[in-house]
Amino acid sequence: MPGKSKAEADESGPVLSANRAFYRAFRDRDMGAMERLWAEAVGLVCIHPGWEALTRRAEILDSWRGILESPNAPQIHCEEASVRFLGDAAIVLCIEMIDGRALVATNVFVREKGSWRMALHQATPTARTLAPRKAETPKTLH
Amino acid sequence: MPGKSKAEADESGPVLSANRAFYRAFRDRDMGAMERLWAEAVGLVCIHPGWEALTRRAEILDSWRGILESPNAPQIHCEEASVRFLGDAAIVLCIEMIDGRALVATNVFVREKGSWRMALHQATPTARTLAPRKAETPKTLH
Repeated sequence: MPGKSKAEADESGPVLSANRAFYRAFRDRDMGAMERLWAEAVGLVCIHPGWEALTRRAEILDSWRGILESPNAPQIHCEEASVRFLGDAAIVLCIEMIDGRALVATNVFVREKGSWRMALHQATPTARTLAPRKAETPKTLH
Repeated sequence: MPGKSKAEADESGPVLSANRAFYRAFRDRDMGAMERLWAEAVGLVCIHPGWEALTRRAEILDSWRGILESPNAPQIHCEEASVRFLGDAAIVLCIEMIDGRALVATNVFVREKGSWRMALHQATPTARTLAPRKAETPKTLH
């Protein structure tokens, strides 16, 4: 990855903090925090594993309400979060551990009124974690 | 989705054009075009279905070389592409049809030296296409 500028290094903390707030809202079943986290001034995308993409803010929040209120809501924690900056947007790549299963997630945040807010969440099953290893061609062709 | 500004509407064409160039490079097995498409000045993420995340430009290009040179490379086309702007970055959401199977893909592009170049590609199996339908809580909890 290209080196980070000082400004980017300074902003990594706030972006990772927003990413932690997302997983804390998930873990604590805190729908108010989840709602505040999603951006309001940009188009959104949320892709739960195996499901169609949700794009309207109301349907994204409805989906989270369903998950957070369910008695079967899974246990989750996030590992190995790292940030890549694209101007006023930032991609966080991380591993979600859900009931012992690993998912790889990309969370895209955008700077909105002084805060980093979520614009995209996509989680997908993965065979392994992000620990450094030899580059290899995927066995599944695309 | 919030309304698009005129500037964003004007830029949708170039972003969708970059997205088409990605699928054209895939379809035509054009490794040169694929290499030119990926950004150079920002950190990258590429997640092939079911696989670990690739983050170094060299390993991402190696993975595409493996896919494009394989005799089993799948047939692909992209449907229902739509753009969301986050300043100098843009998220394209689309459906990939691969050998009759639907994947949902998010492709994030960044403005680099006057061109829109790819910073993130993530494709994941999906049960259905993006055709408008009633919001519904995912059956899989997260």
